[in-house]
Amino acid sequence: MSDLSADRAYELDRKHVFHSWSAQAQLDPMVITKAEGSYVWDRYGNRLLDFTSQLVFTNLGHQHPRIVKAIQEQAATLCTVAPSYVNAARSEAARLIASHTPGDLNRIFFTNGGADANEHAIRMARLHTGRQKVLSTYRSYHGGTQLAVNVTGDPRRWPNDNGSTGTVHFFGPFLYRSAFSATTEAEECDRALAHLEQVIALEGPPTIAAIIMESIPGTAGIMLPPPGYLQGVRELCDRHGIVLIADEVMAGFGRAGRWFAIEHADIVPDLLTFAKGVNSGYAPLGGVAISEPIYRTFADRPYPGGLTYSGHPLACAAAVATIETMQDERIVEHAAELGAEVFGPALRKLAAKHEWIGEVRGTGVFWALELVSDRATREPLAPYGGSSPQLAAIVAASNRRGLLPFTNFNRIHLVPPLTITADEAHEGLDILDQALTEAAS
Amino acid sequence: MSDLSADRAYELDRKHVFHSWSAQAQLDPMVITKAEGSYVWDRYGNRLLDFTSQLVFTNLGHQHPRIVKAIQEQAATLCTVAPSYVNAARSEAARLIASHTPGDLNRIFFTNGGADANEHAIRMARLHTGRQKVLSTYRSYHGGTQLAVNVTGDPRRWPNDNGSTGTVHFFGPFLYRSAFSATTEAEECDRALAHLEQVIALEGPPTIAAIIMESIPGTAGIMLPPPGYLQGVRELCDRHGIVLIADEVMAGFGRAGRWFAIEHADIVPDLLTFAKGVNSGYAPLGGVAISEPIYRTFADRPYPGGLTYSGHPLACAAAVATIETMQDERIVEHAAELGAEVFGPALRKLAAKHEWIGEVRGTGVFWALELVSDRATREPLAPYGGSSPQLAAIVAASNRRGLLPFTNFNRIHLVPPLTITADEAHEGLDILDQALTEAAS
Repeated sequence: MSDLSADRAYELDRKHVFHSWSAQAQLDPMVITKAEGSYVWDRYGNRLLDFTSQLVFTNLGHQHPRIVKAIQEQAATLCTVAPSYVNAARSEAARLIASHTPGDLNRIFFTNGGADANEHAIRMARLHTGRQKVLSTYRSYHGGTQLAVNVTGDPRRWPNDNGSTGTVHFFGPFLYRSAFSATTEAEECDRALAHLEQVIALEGPPTIAAIIMESIPGTAGIMLPPPGYLQGVRELCDRHGIVLIADEVMAGFGRAGRWFAIEHADIVPDLLTFAKGVNSGYAPLGGVAISEPIYRTFADRPYPGGLTYSGHPLACAAAVATIETMQDERIVEHAAELGAEVFGPALRKLAAKHEWIGEVRGTGVFWALELVSDRATREPLAPYGGSSPQLAAIVAASNRRGLLPFTNFNRIHLVPPLTITADEAHEGLDILDQALTEAAS
Repeated sequence: MSDLSADRAYELDRKHVFHSWSAQAQLDPMVITKAEGSYVWDRYGNRLLDFTSQLVFTNLGHQHPRIVKAIQEQAATLCTVAPSYVNAARSEAARLIASHTPGDLNRIFFTNGGADANEHAIRMARLHTGRQKVLSTYRSYHGGTQLAVNVTGDPRRWPNDNGSTGTVHFFGPFLYRSAFSATTEAEECDRALAHLEQVIALEGPPTIAAIIMESIPGTAGIMLPPPGYLQGVRELCDRHGIVLIADEVMAGFGRAGRWFAIEHADIVPDLLTFAKGVNSGYAPLGGVAISEPIYRTFADRPYPGGLTYSGHPLACAAAVATIETMQDERIVEHAAELGAEVFGPALRKLAAKHEWIGEVRGTGVFWALELVSDRATREPLAPYGGSSPQLAAIVAASNRRGLLPFTNFNRIHLVPPLTITADEAHEGLDILDQALTEAAS
């Protein structure tokens, strides 16, 4: 479609394209005409450093030649077959994913994205346990389909909050805005586990099929769980026969400086969901990695779920190229180093300089700045579920200087491609520094 | 992945790939190593004529050079951007789709497939009307995610039938197995409409957000609605302010000899969902075409739904190539001709010869044989929700002779690519003729 002018693309978009999560008539979307590595270009020829990885999925950056080539070759060979057949790209993608997932998570059910991965994981848990209820945290995002958005904790759930029988929300650990009046990480951990233990006891253990949790909550704020928390959740699940579903749609595939973020806690969930980074989003793909006991539930009894494009060859070929590249180019190690040596130190320096930065959180290439109007009261610089002139000013000043930042309510997330160089990362951090200064003045 | 041997692909599949709708340990899936036009090849070098279009989605056959080229070029240019930006391939795909959808269905919300298209259509209807309940027919399939499978009528709903508040099933018209003791098409039409009118009255019109219906039920049996039925449903919806959702995931994009199957009834639904044929399934893509009044509901109020890969450029580029090819090569007209001149006459001849064929139904390249053990009692040759040795024998005999047939319970569906030639169609029909003879002997 390179023959369509950017102006015509914009005109047709406004006429015919209905956008996600938006008031349609109030949009003035940017046209992206070109993208390469860590950068995108708009229709006026401006180059912008992509600190968003779009929606935190282009983990290997834009137009990585190895993934492009793999897609082109798969297209030339065999674009698609139905899920019931065997396909080489799908087999190899499953093997590669299973080689990196923790423990016995060796069976891969492929979906089209994260939402349906979580929907199917919950279904597996319900059928495996014979129970209905699903527990999830308030500060979370699990996807846009009905069941996935009902277990979601963030405000995108509110307008869809109907028919959500069997979903219960609890508080995860988040010391900066503690729901437990905790003052230390250890206290937050203990109290969050005690809270979950009470919720389980009062909801009734024999009614609870699963706890679904992002190993590190992503869009909700990149809150690293305190040491011991996920181990405690694992222990509670074991004690009560509850399936633990780790949602690694955003945190997985190197984003948190490990292949999967749950490795930081050194536990094995019963189901692990993924999407985005699995193939850098070059084609729609998600999935569920399944433990041996849950696999055995569906060994001789049909799993009642599926989809037309499960394990789509084109998407799986992109996954194979992505994972092979991550292995060969030591991308996960690079992400961990960037976190320890670039983002961590630079963001802490930024926090020392800018009053608005209430907290810096993160690991790998997965960072958040919690912005507040007052460090003492921790009053958010934009309300929960909304935006503010200050946040809009930071975005505008960043854009003008050539940076695409990721914002959510009162937060800025630093989530560029894992392939970003230290120089590029510093370029973006410098722009953010200037934008914060300009917006605050 | 062409370097992976077929045996190794099979071995890895059995070790790591979890398949849709199956008891995992009981599978012995066919390896497809190559596909071209109307044919696929297995790992033993056998060539099979694909009378299934995989899962009724490769409408332009396998490896159509124009779609392959479009994918390769889009991959080289810009594999992906987030849904919030403007992308040329997405804009042009939306324009082309809107140019073929009936009436004012000119706004396109893209999803990854049919299930999430139906999920979002129902959400739009609920928010547009402020009502919760959704009516759908018993003999239907609307997708594999939780809400989509809850409105589904076929047995795949049963093991998932929980949390389905707000879904109600009614009977659609199906003269051969009439739920209304009707003996003519006109009677079936009148009684089915009277039944729906009663269901609406007794469920309460102010509680009903939407009626979702396949314009021609697909996997459930390709039952063409009698003349007047869909017009009657449209009239009931208008009378009660109910949103009519036409599910065209399988029947759309030429399958029924029209761009959309609903054109046979000459009415305009409020929402129309699609997937599969939109890009021949070469990359995961689905969507909702939205009427002006429903668009206006979300013009200044955010639509609370979305997904990471909405309007994925690679999938949209495949859609552009598919639709342009359909226009240039007059594929829809070809499909209509095949139905009128090849499948209709040949299948009626087959029915005259084989006692098992209780009814022949279809249009375009969308046909079903209803198989019965007794034409008088119409006893199905396999039970509802199950299979039988007879059906298995027909499939085995077809496979041995080089045909991939599509079966569902007691039915055989004839759903090859729309690009199939008359000669290829006759080749497949001859094989089916022989297979029916062999299996019955």
